[in-house]
Amino acid sequence: MPRAVVLLSGGMDSTTTLAIAVSRGFECLALSFAYGQRHAVELEAARAVAKHHGVRQETVTIDLRSLGGSALTADIPVPKDRPLAEMGKEIPITYVPARNTIFLSFALGWAEVTGARDIFLGVNALDYSGYPDCRPEYIAAFERMANLATKAGVEGARFTIHTPLIAMTKKEIIAAGLALGVDYGRTVSCYDPAPGPLACGRCDACRLRLGAFAGLGKKDPAAYR
Amino acid sequence: MPRAVVLLSGGMDSTTTLAIAVSRGFECLALSFAYGQRHAVELEAARAVAKHHGVRQETVTIDLRSLGGSALTADIPVPKDRPLAEMGKEIPITYVPARNTIFLSFALGWAEVTGARDIFLGVNALDYSGYPDCRPEYIAAFERMANLATKAGVEGARFTIHTPLIAMTKKEIIAAGLALGVDYGRTVSCYDPAPGPLACGRCDACRLRLGAFAGLGKKDPAAYR
Repeated sequence: MPRAVVLLSGGMDSTTTLAIAVSRGFECLALSFAYGQRHAVELEAARAVAKHHGVRQETVTIDLRSLGGSALTADIPVPKDRPLAEMGKEIPITYVPARNTIFLSFALGWAEVTGARDIFLGVNALDYSGYPDCRPEYIAAFERMANLATKAGVEGARFTIHTPLIAMTKKEIIAAGLALGVDYGRTVSCYDPAPGPLACGRCDACRLRLGAFAGLGKKDPAAYR
Repeated sequence: MPRAVVLLSGGMDSTTTLAIAVSRGFECLALSFAYGQRHAVELEAARAVAKHHGVRQETVTIDLRSLGGSALTADIPVPKDRPLAEMGKEIPITYVPARNTIFLSFALGWAEVTGARDIFLGVNALDYSGYPDCRPEYIAAFERMANLATKAGVEGARFTIHTPLIAMTKKEIIAAGLALGVDYGRTVSCYDPAPGPLACGRCDACRLRLGAFAGLGKKDPAAYR
């Protein structure tokens, strides 16, 4: 069984990505980050999701707060009630500088150590929030760099970055996850759930998610305040 | 004065790189990592070096030990007394998986937040220890990826990864540093200085350094045991 490292935030997209990686026959190693995010409750979701799917999960602590510059890690308000049509037009303040690059770099290191050659990342370029590090051209450039970065690469191994959701809508993502047994009640997407675990229902992540469930004629099983 | 992020380990190469960046007119922000390295004494050197050159310095804590797989972070003995001619022929056990990729990713994030568009890294491809993430083709691939990864890049900024030492010998590096006022007595290169601050004199890093000072007819001012 080939191994794969799966970046797992505990949100809807990464959880669906984990289910897809498992369904493709990989022994999955789920990697999460405590990076000073205001929505750290997602890490409990990541652990619950990994357990539900029977995969090993590790949380690496890094301090992105010391870098600053994002509403997800600094004392900047999370935007609320933005129309869906506005999302993706410009890069929002919830963008975290170099986040996916940092996360993928750790995934690459862990993949090299564990013998995994496949890395799964739940970015998507449709229905997304406009983050530059969710675009296919970025992913291709990272993969190319990764294959020059490692001892394993020099010795002939080839790393592949899989982004199975990249061309899917949120509705398609939910439909795929439900077919693979994902329990979306365990996932946390909200950017601003503090102080409790309840989702706000008003940030971009909540609005995209609620819109997609509504479009499917289903109720989102996550708990909203 | 344009800003630059300089990766500063506190060793000979990164310290020389900092002096070069300062001499080129950059306001330098020095970035160091506490990554579980057995030679954590280098972090004190990094702080002393930054102070000596009058630049701001930050240390980010990350846990590379949880990834394992290297003599620099795991309980694997550091190789000693290897002939200089053997170095660079194969990738040694002191290789840390994805280390430069992780460090450059944080540097990219900090550069974006602080408005820096230049990142300096003290790798060199001659007299080096055979690490894949010290090669020019790797650096070029990282730079290309970096320019797709960020909001600043989307908005037209261009990040440049500078590797001023990449084609220099260790002798040339020391000569350049001395001309720029580097005090090599403050730097720590040794991979295995534990338990005290004294360098071992026998690991690859010590042997390359001692050989270069000897070749210049100078005494290495670092303290050896």
